[in-house]
Amino acid sequence: MPHTRVPAIHLGPEYDPALARGIEAGGGRLVSLGDAEAVVWKGGPDSFPERLPDAVRWVQLPSAGIERWFAAGLIDNDRVWTSAAGAYAPSVAEHAVLLLLAGVRGLGEQTRATSWRKAEFETRVGTLHGATVAIIGCGGIGRAMIPLFRAFGAQVLASTRSGTPVPGAVETVDASRNAELFSRADHIVIAAPATADTAHLVDADALARMKPAAWIVNIARGSLIDTDALVRALREETIGGAALDVTDPEPLPDGHPLWSLPNAVITPHLANPSGGLPGLLAEHVRANVERFAAGEPLLALVDTERGY
Amino acid sequence: MPHTRVPAIHLGPEYDPALARGIEAGGGRLVSLGDAEAVVWKGGPDSFPERLPDAVRWVQLPSAGIERWFAAGLIDNDRVWTSAAGAYAPSVAEHAVLLLLAGVRGLGEQTRATSWRKAEFETRVGTLHGATVAIIGCGGIGRAMIPLFRAFGAQVLASTRSGTPVPGAVETVDASRNAELFSRADHIVIAAPATADTAHLVDADALARMKPAAWIVNIARGSLIDTDALVRALREETIGGAALDVTDPEPLPDGHPLWSLPNAVITPHLANPSGGLPGLLAEHVRANVERFAAGEPLLALVDTERGY
Repeated sequence: MPHTRVPAIHLGPEYDPALARGIEAGGGRLVSLGDAEAVVWKGGPDSFPERLPDAVRWVQLPSAGIERWFAAGLIDNDRVWTSAAGAYAPSVAEHAVLLLLAGVRGLGEQTRATSWRKAEFETRVGTLHGATVAIIGCGGIGRAMIPLFRAFGAQVLASTRSGTPVPGAVETVDASRNAELFSRADHIVIAAPATADTAHLVDADALARMKPAAWIVNIARGSLIDTDALVRALREETIGGAALDVTDPEPLPDGHPLWSLPNAVITPHLANPSGGLPGLLAEHVRANVERFAAGEPLLALVDTERGY
Repeated sequence: MPHTRVPAIHLGPEYDPALARGIEAGGGRLVSLGDAEAVVWKGGPDSFPERLPDAVRWVQLPSAGIERWFAAGLIDNDRVWTSAAGAYAPSVAEHAVLLLLAGVRGLGEQTRATSWRKAEFETRVGTLHGATVAIIGCGGIGRAMIPLFRAFGAQVLASTRSGTPVPGAVETVDASRNAELFSRADHIVIAAPATADTAHLVDADALARMKPAAWIVNIARGSLIDTDALVRALREETIGGAALDVTDPEPLPDGHPLWSLPNAVITPHLANPSGGLPGLLAEHVRANVERFAAGEPLLALVDTERGY
C-alpha cells in the first residue's frame, strides 16, 4: 500500500457528523482553521471567515450554484475553490425528469382536480416514449439525466458552451445554436449555470420557436427564463407548458399568475432539498478529500473567470 | 424469401387507419367477417358479434384488462384469444414510475400549493436513488418498469404467481410471499391482474406491514386495494402515501376522501389513455399478425381458465 498524505482539514462553520465521516473516509483529519490546509464549508457565505489563513490551499463549498459567494467577494485566486456541482446531480436529474414527465402526461392538472375528469384529461396525455428532449447547458446535471431519458425511450439533444460531444446524446451543439434546439426538440430542459451570458436565455423568441405541445423544464436558476414572456406563452397556449423548480422572482410571490395557470407546474426549489437527501454531499466531500490527499485534480473546480 | 401465408383478417367494429396499416404491415389482408380467419377488434364487448364464424381461429382484443369480455361471456374455448397486454406497457410503466416519483418527492402537495412553501415541503422530499421498489404481479408491465427504476438507482424486488426469476430484479418471490415484500420494500407498485385471487391483495394487514415513508402505486385495477383500509392508513399517516391511477369505486365519486388527502395522488385511469398514444396498439397488432401468418405463438394469449 503506497504512503498517503493525511491532509489537515477544517470543517466549518460547525461540526457535522456526515461530513466529518466523509472527510475521514477520504483520508483527511479534522483540525482548527489555524492549522488547516483545506476548508470544507457547510454554511452560507455570511458566516464565512473574512480572511483565510495563507496555508489554506483549497476550499470546498456546500452548494452547486455559487453566485452568492462571488457576489460576496469571497472567491479569490489565492487558492483552489470547489463547489458541490455534481454532488446533487442524481437528485436534480431525478427532479427534472419528474417535472418533464409530469408535464407531458398532464399530472399538474390531474393532481389539482377533485373529480374524475378522465375524458377531458385523456386527450392531453403524452409520453416520453419516442420523444426528443433538448438539454440546454448539458453539464454534470444534464449528463445525469441522459440515461434516465434514454430509459424512457426518449433521445437527447445536448447544448454545451463548447459543443464538445456529450456521451449518450444523439447530437451536441455549442451554445450559439441553442435557437435551433428550441425548434427541433419536442421538449426543453434548462440546466445551464446562471451567468451574465445565460440571463434570459429563454426569451420570447426562444419560446416562439418551441413546438405547440412542448414543455419546458427549469431546474437551473430562475434568471435563465424571461418570466413575463413565459407567462404570455402559457396564457396563449403556444407551448405545452412549463414545469419550474426555480423562478424569477424567487420565492414566487403569492398571487403570481404561475400559481394558477393550468399548464404550469411549480415546485419551490426542491430539486436539491437542503439536508433532505443525506449522504450526497458527504460522498462528494469524501471523493474530493481523497483526490486532494493524492494530489489529483479535484471535482467541481470553480472557474473564477467565468463565475461558476 | 420464404413463401408466407397472407391471413384474411376482419377489422371491426369499424375501419381504423392505424390498425389497418398494422394488419397490412404484419402481412395480413382485410376481409369481411364472413371471410375471416381472424378478427382484430378495436371496440368494446357491447358491439362484439354474438356468434363468430367457425372459421375464425383467433381474436385480437384491444385492451390489456379483459374482465368485461369474460363477464359478457364472449371468451370461448373454440379459438385463440389475445389481449393487448404488453402493447401499452411502455406507457403504463412510464405512468407508474411518474406516480412513484411524484409520491416520493412530494409533487402532489407541491402542485396543489399556491404559495412558496419551500421550508415545509423540503423536509418531505425523498428520492428513488438507493431505494428498493417491490413490484407485485411483475408481468409484462412490471418488467417494462424495471429498467426505468434501475436507471434512477433503485433496485427491484419482484413478485409473480410462479416465482420464476424476473430478469433485472434483484430477487423474485412467488405470490405466497407478498407479505414479506410489503415489509422489506421502501415502496410498492401493484401491477397484478384483477382476478378472484388478487381482490383486496392490499388489505389492512399488507398496509400495516409497509414502512412509514413507503408509497404505494396502483396502475392495475382498483379492486386490488381495500380502499377503506387505505384511507385509514393515509389519514393515520402510517405510510408515506398512495398514488393511484385506478380506484375502487371507479370512477371515484366527488367528495371521496381520496380527493382531498394530502398524501394521495389520483390520476383518472390515464396510464393507458384511450387513443391518446397512437401507434402502440397498431404495433402490437402488426407483431401478432406477423406471428399468426408464420404460425408462431401469439403475444398476450388469454388464459381462459385463469381469466386474464
